[in-house]
Amino acid sequence: MSGHLTYKQSGVDTIEAQSFVHNIAPHVKRTQKQRQLFNAFGLFAAAYDLSSYKEPVIVTGTDGVGTKTELLFEQDMLETAGKDLVAMNVNDILTTGGDPLLFLDYLGISNLKAETPRITRLVAGMCDYLESCNCILAGGETAEMPGVVPADLVELAGFCIGCVEKSSMIDPSQVAVGDVLIGYGSDGFHANGWSLVRRILAENPGLLTTEELHAALAPTRLYHDVVRDMRSLGITPKAYAHITGGGLPENLERFLGDKGADLEIPYWDNAPAQKVLQFVDAEDRFHTFNMGIGWVAIVRPEQVEQALTAGPGGVVIGTIRAGKGIRVSVSSK
Amino acid sequence: MSGHLTYKQSGVDTIEAQSFVHNIAPHVKRTQKQRQLFNAFGLFAAAYDLSSYKEPVIVTGTDGVGTKTELLFEQDMLETAGKDLVAMNVNDILTTGGDPLLFLDYLGISNLKAETPRITRLVAGMCDYLESCNCILAGGETAEMPGVVPADLVELAGFCIGCVEKSSMIDPSQVAVGDVLIGYGSDGFHANGWSLVRRILAENPGLLTTEELHAALAPTRLYHDVVRDMRSLGITPKAYAHITGGGLPENLERFLGDKGADLEIPYWDNAPAQKVLQFVDAEDRFHTFNMGIGWVAIVRPEQVEQALTAGPGGVVIGTIRAGKGIRVSVSSK
Repeated sequence: MSGHLTYKQSGVDTIEAQSFVHNIAPHVKRTQKQRQLFNAFGLFAAAYDLSSYKEPVIVTGTDGVGTKTELLFEQDMLETAGKDLVAMNVNDILTTGGDPLLFLDYLGISNLKAETPRITRLVAGMCDYLESCNCILAGGETAEMPGVVPADLVELAGFCIGCVEKSSMIDPSQVAVGDVLIGYGSDGFHANGWSLVRRILAENPGLLTTEELHAALAPTRLYHDVVRDMRSLGITPKAYAHITGGGLPENLERFLGDKGADLEIPYWDNAPAQKVLQFVDAEDRFHTFNMGIGWVAIVRPEQVEQALTAGPGGVVIGTIRAGKGIRVSVSSK
Repeated sequence: MSGHLTYKQSGVDTIEAQSFVHNIAPHVKRTQKQRQLFNAFGLFAAAYDLSSYKEPVIVTGTDGVGTKTELLFEQDMLETAGKDLVAMNVNDILTTGGDPLLFLDYLGISNLKAETPRITRLVAGMCDYLESCNCILAGGETAEMPGVVPADLVELAGFCIGCVEKSSMIDPSQVAVGDVLIGYGSDGFHANGWSLVRRILAENPGLLTTEELHAALAPTRLYHDVVRDMRSLGITPKAYAHITGGGLPENLERFLGDKGADLEIPYWDNAPAQKVLQFVDAEDRFHTFNMGIGWVAIVRPEQVEQALTAGPGGVVIGTIRAGKGIRVSVSSK
């Protein structure tokens, strides 16, 4: 073949790409039960009609699954990786009070043919979560990059677009002294702090059983149920916070300015997480992990009782006070 | 330190992340001269107000730079990588007739401190292109993933959101027999087909001088100028096509249905590209590379003369005929 190479001979198989698209089609379809893409035949972009909104504000963000990806792949938890990718992005959109509308994924792989079974499961997991929050899988790029992406690694990036009526947008600048913080449980470490967890697991072989490891790797909880219930109850919180890297302090301080709170959170009743945490600096753990609280809503005092009925597992964790800074303590059992 | 690890000890440096954000701030600011983000203090997502649109349709897509990334990094062409990332995404948005409004990037790296100088230049390149088409760098995720992303590799994914009035949306289903295809020059291979180019370069050491290689690696041309001029001229083309992987045939056939065209394109007067192409199968080259035409507009015959004045370098390459399929030949010089 000297002198006349084809693209396939260089390791990129466009036919295989069509087969992958065929594989994921039924999953993609599941995400368009409630909402549909706008017919945009022949365009090179996905389209969504916002003309039913009065004063639409679009909200957007991007995130990945970080170093948790590697453990999820080692443990063959592909669906979980897909769910994590969706939840990390959708939860950020939900902090605005808006609806997550469109999700896109970018997958970088070494060999499409070899990876098709795994990335199909990954997309299936994405669509499980997307279907549950009525968000459309609007597009994606699966880039086959032989020699660039190491074999067995999948590069994962997600991207979400939501929309909110300008008048209903959450406005954290309205948080006032006396407002109450309600925390909602996490399902594990979610997708933050895994570089540290991985190091601890490597230095302490046998610390977790396989079953415990899988429990610790549970997908990031999607807080769509809390937001939906708040809306049904007619409650517009002053703020929502998605507790990711930086933990409760950094994810709350970012919008509290010269206000703060002394939080008392319940003991994190998660055996695998506690086994790992014993190896983590006592202060640093609150700045790295969610410590059992993955989502916070801040509401007016008179709304607390009603707000606690939104979604499962809400618990009062503190009250806004004057004075900068978030301090976190764990209530004695 | 047995028993008490901090997050930084696991290889993730959140302070360094703040320094990177500080570095890129002036570049990000440049992208908000014409358009501004909607004030969304304390939210976990970027916001943009669409309430000035009557019937907004949002359009979105995601893409990367593929295996071209590796060569760009080897040649220290970081700004080019940033421009490619933007152009690959923005051009797709432009096919709808809409404005590119928001861009987000996902960068996966091994070590933030080591990579900060390089990814700052990468973001600067992104912002050069974004500024030129009035698209805001609305957000990004820079994920430090020690042990997952190989050292020296940067995972690159881009996402773009645009908006178009429903009534002004390009509708390729309107393409009719007799409509004319106008082609616009490319600046090189752009960001497709590089797995094949890399293989040819590896098998033929010294085929290109460094200068020629850099010319072949020129950033993907941004076709915003063509689209802007068409709009000023009051021309709404029947279709736009961004010529990426699959070349002219696949990127036109996707919306032509049972129609087609026999295209005659000018000889691609690009010495480094021609040196590489001599090693590529004569048919496959048209299905892998843009062959000198990176953008196509399809207009009504009576609009051709005027349309040729839009942007630099438009040339008539064919006419829509009945009968499926795109055939491409090169006009004799």
